[in-house]
Amino acid sequence: MAYLAVALIGTVLLLLPIASSGPGSPPIITAMFASVSSVCITGLSTVDIGTYWTPFGQAVILGLVQVGGLGIVTLGTLAALFVRGRLGVRDRMMAQRDAHTLSPGDVRGLLARIVRFYVALELFVVVVLTLRFALAYDMSWGKASWYGLFHGVSAGNSAGIALYPDSMVRFVGDWWVVGAMCVGVFVGGLGYPVLFELRERWRRPRSWSVHTRMTFWGSVGLLVIGCTSFLAFEWTNPGTMGPLSVHDKVVGALAGGIFPRTAGFNTVDYGAISDESMLTHMVLMFIGGGSAGTAGGIKITTFLVLAYVMWAEVRGERDVVISHRRIPEDTQRQAITIALGGIGCVMAGTIALTLLTEQPFQIVAFEAMSAFATVGLSANLTAHLPASAEVVLMVLMFIGRVGTITVMTSLAMNRRHRRFRLAEERPIVG
Amino acid sequence: MAYLAVALIGTVLLLLPIASSGPGSPPIITAMFASVSSVCITGLSTVDIGTYWTPFGQAVILGLVQVGGLGIVTLGTLAALFVRGRLGVRDRMMAQRDAHTLSPGDVRGLLARIVRFYVALELFVVVVLTLRFALAYDMSWGKASWYGLFHGVSAGNSAGIALYPDSMVRFVGDWWVVGAMCVGVFVGGLGYPVLFELRERWRRPRSWSVHTRMTFWGSVGLLVIGCTSFLAFEWTNPGTMGPLSVHDKVVGALAGGIFPRTAGFNTVDYGAISDESMLTHMVLMFIGGGSAGTAGGIKITTFLVLAYVMWAEVRGERDVVISHRRIPEDTQRQAITIALGGIGCVMAGTIALTLLTEQPFQIVAFEAMSAFATVGLSANLTAHLPASAEVVLMVLMFIGRVGTITVMTSLAMNRRHRRFRLAEERPIVG
Ligand SMILES: [K+]
Ligand SMILES: [K+]
Repeated sequence: MAYLAVALIGTVLLLLPIASSGPGSPPIITAMFASVSSVCITGLSTVDIGTYWTPFGQAVILGLVQVGGLGIVTLGTLAALFVRGRLGVRDRMMAQRDAHTLSPGDVRGLLARIVRFYVALELFVVVVLTLRFALAYDMSWGKASWYGLFHGVSAGNSAGIALYPDSMVRFVGDWWVVGAMCVGVFVGGLGYPVLFELRERWRRPRSWSVHTRMTFWGSVGLLVIGCTSFLAFEWTNPGTMGPLSVHDKVVGALAGGIFPRTAGFNTVDYGAISDESMLTHMVLMFIGGGSAGTAGGIKITTFLVLAYVMWAEVRGERDVVISHRRIPEDTQRQAITIALGGIGCVMAGTIALTLLTEQPFQIVAFEAMSAFATVGLSANLTAHLPASAEVVLMVLMFIGRVGTITVMTSLAMNRRHRRFRLAEERPIVG
Repeated sequence: MAYLAVALIGTVLLLLPIASSGPGSPPIITAMFASVSSVCITGLSTVDIGTYWTPFGQAVILGLVQVGGLGIVTLGTLAALFVRGRLGVRDRMMAQRDAHTLSPGDVRGLLARIVRFYVALELFVVVVLTLRFALAYDMSWGKASWYGLFHGVSAGNSAGIALYPDSMVRFVGDWWVVGAMCVGVFVGGLGYPVLFELRERWRRPRSWSVHTRMTFWGSVGLLVIGCTSFLAFEWTNPGTMGPLSVHDKVVGALAGGIFPRTAGFNTVDYGAISDESMLTHMVLMFIGGGSAGTAGGIKITTFLVLAYVMWAEVRGERDVVISHRRIPEDTQRQAITIALGGIGCVMAGTIALTLLTEQPFQIVAFEAMSAFATVGLSANLTAHLPASAEVVLMVLMFIGRVGTITVMTSLAMNRRHRRFRLAEERPIVG
């Protein structure tokens, strides 16, 4: 609900005549789409942000991104704490104190730490970008700071919103710009619980919790898969990486491996990528990043838990075991619910968009997946949609952003117990 | 393994010069594809069956269909019995005798009953088709019987193989032909356990098992959804139903609602259907029909069990309850494994086919889904594939056909128990 309220405030602010560069107010649907897209830190946009909105409008968008990003991290972390606390598991995040004794002071301290961490991360990206913009691209210091601030905050929140009409395509070979933004996106996307644990004991990987192991190694694995498949599928594509030098290709592949999982920056033209890349990107977007971070998708842990469930079933094991720990059945059920709900949403969204537009199927499916996973990549479709399709995208972004947290907390908030258990019956499946 | 052997024998028979109408033997890949497609009762074909193969070759194909169809029904039914028997549930199929005392005589009796039932079903379709072909289409009685026999057996096994190059498009308005084939496909696709129970107590739906309820009402529901969505999406499509009269549209929609779930007959040109229909068809194909029947896909019960799991999770219920019966956790896990494994196979197959062909994305995805769900519909792609892509399709058909049964039986065959249970740990998902 808080998200809806923030999105409404953002819409009103963007409707002010001083927010957009054209005469008068922008259309309501345009302002609403920009606001929802920003607060859900998705980054899809129906207009060119750099020219359509004035600096005031851009600042509003950046503010929404910041509120949305910090909001999702804190809410996600608190929800995770709450779920763990209710279930009596010793909390690893609150310095080993029991989580079900969370006092208001603890929560304030936690929030402060989260804000500090993310501001520091963003600051790092902002400084690198500002220096690079000023020193290598002949920008005035004023413009360089503004562009550095905007793209740094955008990267630290995995928003993927850029002031350039072609996103970051012009920087495809620039290690500094791409590298700093990749660090922001990758680290921010791990999620605060993982970051906290890594900071405390990054030298002792054997003491990591199952959650941290899965998120960390899963992220690294998906990064490698994303980069290599991007290189393999796009190496000779004349519309994307074909004309680039080998050096630029490698930088582009790093961006092509990290950004699609959560941040909608692009360094090549996604209107020209091959169908193979589109499909792998859709899978990567759907999996997403770490829980309680700025990333979208169903989250790496959800995906891995399901993979282990399948593995256990194929091997005929009674328990699902990940690095010597048993995964309880209600966690498995949560993971299924999130994954299947996500597939259902993307399916329904794709069918709706197909009905409302005349575009090729894969373009539309890509757009729906990008919205649900709050990634914000687009094969140049968003700008040409009718208002009805924009509404569909807004709904998808909203569900994708708050849906998984809702499912997660519903487990703890709304548990019902029947007084008696019904008789079992075993339908044949498969 | 038995399936592989039958497929190999079929390949050898189809390689005989008298099987194909051209000079000499057909290419090995062509014969192998036809054999695998027939024994997996999929019905995809790289050549025009009516002209490429001689009547001898067609008879071989029909024999493979019959062996494959009866094989899958008996194996599926036995596997279901075995799973239930091991778990001590009172068996509903063996006249209330306990299933874990299955004697060889019981199995023989069961097999005989299955064969009798399916032969009767096929005979019904064959007779209707033969009469209709002879009386309304000016065929000689000899030709009419052969065409009736071929298409009747093909429908009774949900194979979807037709002797006409355009499948059943010419019969789109013929209630007799379409109706009889729909009956064969729908009834055959419910699966023997459901059919047995329906025969025993079709007047007392309150006494049905959960499995029968789910399969029966699920089939009816999917039928309605399939027909109405097909009508809605194709009513004005000039390439499919646009030019037809309203009467023909209704018949065509019945076919378009039943056949896609399992049998690859088509009464309209699937190369011209809209993207919306393609997507809904892919979903319907993936869900498929009833367990231990001739249908493919992940099966209706699997789909519904997962839907109820999600429902229970959203409501915060501890147990998953379907019509006053609790669904045990290992059944839930089986369903997840089958559904996610299926999604993975279709994804991998689609990526492979995209790499191997230059066709539009949705055509390729449709083909992969059709092969995995052993449906056999094609947007006119199968005939233009390179040999490597044919191999991909063969693998998909094979996994789709025997994969789910394997998962189901692995549960009963291969259960391992650790002597100790590991400590629980609860990763954050979502
Ligand atoms: K994003
Ligand atoms: K079939």
